[in-house]
Amino acid sequence: MDAPPATERIARAGYDYVVLDGQHGLIGYEGLLNGLLAIDAGGSTGLVRVEANDPTPIGRALDAGAAGVIVPLIDTADDVALAVRAAKYPPVGRRSFGPMRSALRFGPEPAKANAETVVLAMIETAQALANVEAICATPQLDGLYVGPVDLSLALGARYPGDPEIADAFEDAVARIAAAAATAGIAAGIHTFDGENANRRLKQGYSFATVSSDLSHLEAIAAEHLRVARG
Amino acid sequence: MDAPPATERIARAGYDYVVLDGQHGLIGYEGLLNGLLAIDAGGSTGLVRVEANDPTPIGRALDAGAAGVIVPLIDTADDVALAVRAAKYPPVGRRSFGPMRSALRFGPEPAKANAETVVLAMIETAQALANVEAICATPQLDGLYVGPVDLSLALGARYPGDPEIADAFEDAVARIAAAAATAGIAAGIHTFDGENANRRLKQGYSFATVSSDLSHLEAIAAEHLRVARG
Amino acid sequence: MDAPPATERIARAGYDYVVLDGQHGLIGYEGLLNGLLAIDAGGSTGLVRVEANDPTPIGRALDAGAAGVIVPLIDTADDVALAVRAAKYPPVGRRSFGPMRSALRFGPEPAKANAETVVLAMIETAQALANVEAICATPQLDGLYVGPVDLSLALGARYPGDPEIADAFEDAVARIAAAAATAGIAAGIHTFDGENANRRLKQGYSFATVSSDLSHLEAIAAEHLRVARG
Amino acid sequence: MDAPPATERIARAGYDYVVLDGQHGLIGYEGLLNGLLAIDAGGSTGLVRVEANDPTPIGRALDAGAAGVIVPLIDTADDVALAVRAAKYPPVGRRSFGPMRSALRFGPEPAKANAETVVLAMIETAQALANVEAICATPQLDGLYVGPVDLSLALGARYPGDPEIADAFEDAVARIAAAAATAGIAAGIHTFDGENANRRLKQGYSFATVSSDLSHLEAIAAEHLRVARG
Amino acid sequence: MDAPPATERIARAGYDYVVLDGQHGLIGYEGLLNGLLAIDAGGSTGLVRVEANDPTPIGRALDAGAAGVIVPLIDTADDVALAVRAAKYPPVGRRSFGPMRSALRFGPEPAKANAETVVLAMIETAQALANVEAICATPQLDGLYVGPVDLSLALGARYPGDPEIADAFEDAVARIAAAAATAGIAAGIHTFDGENANRRLKQGYSFATVSSDLSHLEAIAAEHLRVARG
Amino acid sequence: MDAPPATERIARAGYDYVVLDGQHGLIGYEGLLNGLLAIDAGGSTGLVRVEANDPTPIGRALDAGAAGVIVPLIDTADDVALAVRAAKYPPVGRRSFGPMRSALRFGPEPAKANAETVVLAMIETAQALANVEAICATPQLDGLYVGPVDLSLALGARYPGDPEIADAFEDAVARIAAAAATAGIAAGIHTFDGENANRRLKQGYSFATVSSDLSHLEAIAAEHLRVARG
Ligand SMILES: [Mg+2]
Ligand SMILES: [Mg+2]
Ligand SMILES: [Mg+2]
Ligand SMILES: [Mg+2]
Ligand SMILES: [Mg+2]
Ligand SMILES: [Mg+2]
Repeated sequence: MDAPPATERIARAGYDYVVLDGQHGLIGYEGLLNGLLAIDAGGSTGLVRVEANDPTPIGRALDAGAAGVIVPLIDTADDVALAVRAAKYPPVGRRSFGPMRSALRFGPEPAKANAETVVLAMIETAQALANVEAICATPQLDGLYVGPVDLSLALGARYPGDPEIADAFEDAVARIAAAAATAGIAAGIHTFDGENANRRLKQGYSFATVSSDLSHLEAIAAEHLRVARG
Repeated sequence: MDAPPATERIARAGYDYVVLDGQHGLIGYEGLLNGLLAIDAGGSTGLVRVEANDPTPIGRALDAGAAGVIVPLIDTADDVALAVRAAKYPPVGRRSFGPMRSALRFGPEPAKANAETVVLAMIETAQALANVEAICATPQLDGLYVGPVDLSLALGARYPGDPEIADAFEDAVARIAAAAATAGIAAGIHTFDGENANRRLKQGYSFATVSSDLSHLEAIAAEHLRVARG
Repeated sequence: MDAPPATERIARAGYDYVVLDGQHGLIGYEGLLNGLLAIDAGGSTGLVRVEANDPTPIGRALDAGAAGVIVPLIDTADDVALAVRAAKYPPVGRRSFGPMRSALRFGPEPAKANAETVVLAMIETAQALANVEAICATPQLDGLYVGPVDLSLALGARYPGDPEIADAFEDAVARIAAAAATAGIAAGIHTFDGENANRRLKQGYSFATVSSDLSHLEAIAAEHLRVARG
Repeated sequence: MDAPPATERIARAGYDYVVLDGQHGLIGYEGLLNGLLAIDAGGSTGLVRVEANDPTPIGRALDAGAAGVIVPLIDTADDVALAVRAAKYPPVGRRSFGPMRSALRFGPEPAKANAETVVLAMIETAQALANVEAICATPQLDGLYVGPVDLSLALGARYPGDPEIADAFEDAVARIAAAAATAGIAAGIHTFDGENANRRLKQGYSFATVSSDLSHLEAIAAEHLRVARG
Repeated sequence: MDAPPATERIARAGYDYVVLDGQHGLIGYEGLLNGLLAIDAGGSTGLVRVEANDPTPIGRALDAGAAGVIVPLIDTADDVALAVRAAKYPPVGRRSFGPMRSALRFGPEPAKANAETVVLAMIETAQALANVEAICATPQLDGLYVGPVDLSLALGARYPGDPEIADAFEDAVARIAAAAATAGIAAGIHTFDGENANRRLKQGYSFATVSSDLSHLEAIAAEHLRVARG
Repeated sequence: MDAPPATERIARAGYDYVVLDGQHGLIGYEGLLNGLLAIDAGGSTGLVRVEANDPTPIGRALDAGAAGVIVPLIDTADDVALAVRAAKYPPVGRRSFGPMRSALRFGPEPAKANAETVVLAMIETAQALANVEAICATPQLDGLYVGPVDLSLALGARYPGDPEIADAFEDAVARIAAAAATAGIAAGIHTFDGENANRRLKQGYSFATVSSDLSHLEAIAAEHLRVARG
């Protein structure tokens, strides 16, 4: 959501990182830029889930000061290689040099920026699940990030939270964690509340994103209204 | 907060009205305008707490489509009369005609707009509390609106929620409700959660605003983090 | 044009739908989002002509609350299939789940959203005209939309409205209407005034978009100036 | 309306000046600034109707590059003197020096800027009409500007265009023109179409503003819809 | 200037404070808010020169996170008292409580915020110079801030930098420094380059603001062009 | 940088053209549009370095009024052909017709717009350098534009300005100038100050862009601070 003072508050709550969602987050370029400023003002670290596995949004998010990118709709190790190519300067990749805000973080040296820029691949399609071990082996990939709703739809769910695929979903989540552990990279997952996040962390996930600002707001506004009306 | 899609969500939660805070809400003119559009899109009614008891923000909020204004820092009945003068067209007041969005609500007839435009006076200073019965008697005033933090500071609180003045605060809240009831106008109050709102409604307040979007977000983000960390 | 109160006025004029032009409309992402809010506030239905046949703008327009997309520069049935794939959730397509505003319209069930999301293909190139019958047969396509200026240039016009290709243009418009009718899908066309729109509706077109806000303004401003100067 | 490309089109239509409406125009500070840039890009001259007779909006409109200000809700010659004081540098007035964009027009010399900055007083209240001759005599006032709707309401109209006060309104318009002519200053009036503007120019008014962008758009959109529906 | 990434760069250059100019800076409310976020992200401290000595912009700048305000066009000690009243909570002043971003800096306790919020009075009119000793004696005033261009115009300059009043200007600058020193408050001055700032610091001024972003840019762009053309 | 009044100042400094950087410039779509308005208001000519060699940003920059585009990361003559195809209307290319602001410059005739729209190819990769003669021979290409930092990294530099590859870099710059001269097209280069620009112009480059607004500001702010601190 494009609301820098709200983003700053969330950053100050103590989260290790805050993700700005360039894909589903109802946020344009100016919102990303001001959101990354707000995260820095709040003392946290900003990641951007980019709108697509495309060099333009990847480069622009990094130039604007993101510490890393979460790349959606990855299917194969080749897809990851394309994302890495977009996120890293030559000779590793093909990112164009113009680190307007990222140089504030990493300095102007391309090799240093390459080493510190994080690339995370979303696992949220049937193909990605089938290829997850190969995906994990892609050079320069820092971690996986599970998109639970899309993954559940890929597993046949009729709607988010469909109990019919709950077992298949848990198996998939476990397989993804195992693949990441074997490859020695991080695994993260989007969750909808703190309890769920806690469960995934115990399960071997090294980070878990908690809900979204818009869902937060909607839930608590409805709850207060229910209580007020007695 | 200037975030129209969040405002729309709150409007859709079923609240009878949504207040955009032009005084403390970190929201500029464009934010007010788009926020009022979002409230209309969400099917609720938009009020604006204006930044000051000044004809310019009062007229601009109404032109932009607010159903009414909440006017801060009222001390006397004369202050209310100035607010009414700014909110109503001649011969009642002195609002200039240019109802760009408000005519969509009320039509172009000034007398009709005058009849339907709501003016609420904030009771949040020591002077206002002393004058509350006279304030209630001002013609064209539709209701009172208690600003609990400023009122408590005016009663000597050292910080928001200071227990030392809790009794004096409850007395004041009761006096304000009684004055409004006697004058036959509405009384509302800002509250910080649904439970508190429910209590005030039982106490005779006819409407209660629940918290603010920024506080909502901060509270729930901190809570989820606490739970996630176990 | 990025001007939500103007968009709201047009929406309130009674049009069945209002198209926000993400391709030529001088409007960025924030403008699309606020424009869709304004259309909802005005009680009409918002469509977006996306900037390209690319999954990113298609998904983002739908997430932001568009009821459907108009996809430019379609050449073949394969192009349509790509657009459908971007606009529909699995198993029909490959849209990622994150229906921030579209769930307000359709609810969270992917199959229901798929059924109600409209996809229209622009017919505005020579190739598209040659392939129009095959295009119409693509599954999940809801209708065609003629781009008259690009189509006329494709037919050899030297400038918009070139009389030399008027006959060829009329033949093309008729062929497109016939292809849509045969396939049982809708056909629409962009027109420059109400008279033209009326003629196309009589010709079998089921909807016609009338001009653009910027052209409207320019025309009437020039006309008033001419009259004022006597 | 905050829509720079539309403002530029109107500026290019050949109007001698374009007024940005800071009072009723649904336009914030950024909109005024970009609107003045658009008017300059379009080759016309920008005036701003300020939101109030207050030094802050007057100074900010001029700093942002307006050639002059139209000051609303003037009642007396003293009101005009206050507006002049806000618009001119010492020793004439009390404008603070910081001509960020206005120096591009007038250069940095205060006396030169004072000479070229235009101040127009709106005549739209009963008091202003009663005092119009005295108002015209205020030093440094460049002209009057009739606000027809507010003036008609001041004369007792029940709604804009009320025929009951048509004669009184025409008398007032004639008196205002005569007062300006006697004082040797300009007189302008807001009109709603070119025909009306032409009539006022023949009546001795030296300039006439034609309608507003939002009304333009609404009128022509409704007309096209009516014709399209046959 | 409303350009958060540029503001962040200046904040990171090592300045002790960065002033956002709400009066002449071509910057609206959203620009102030994002600019204050950018200054915090850059690790400096943000002050706002407010647009006028009016409680609304003073309160809004502080709510948005400014560490203090610079108040323009002060003439008398009473003017300063009004500014203090707007900047401090009861019982010292009359600021309304709603410290949306300022509480991030000072915490929620009004007395603590009052103690840490900075109020600076601009000395830039003939009256202010005449009253400077009385102004310095106003309780709760933290310092003076010389506006050199307006002050020189007040002293009779025909244009910025007029050598005819150079001596009178230097006398005034010295008198202001002496008055502040006697009263034990700070004195600051706006300067146009580092050399000038250094001279004022040696003269007893405790802080000096260096130029403005827009002037910076214009000067260096012109210089590079001159050199490039040989 | 998205700051129209700063862009206008640079445009007024006398530069023949001003480039808005859609790739690394921290500027979204609205910033490009208002920046092009500001350049026109400042009396210069606007070019846009687009974010990628993709028809969408190329078409949108031109529709928004750019006189031409600078296309990054070109490797081959085929890449140039794609850029030309995106920038020119049929039959030369495949740009869709909707010249919202560009028609203000070129008129509505596609052939005329094609003739006057400038396409420049960036030479900044190892492949582009190897293919530079073939690239120059692509029909409809107006010139080359050297990206010195990316080109130096492509030549093995460890950081911008690495002296180890200085000779290789000078050879490359000379080869590019020669290739352009042979093909009869223009050659330009990005430089970091006026002196460097002057040297390149003497070397046969026909245009040279001088630095960027953000670097300008940062350099001069640091310099003033250094001097002020003595
Ligand atoms: Mg590059
Ligand atoms: Mg009026
Ligand atoms: Mg997904
Ligand atoms: Mg000043
Ligand atoms: Mg209050
Ligand atoms: Mg087209």
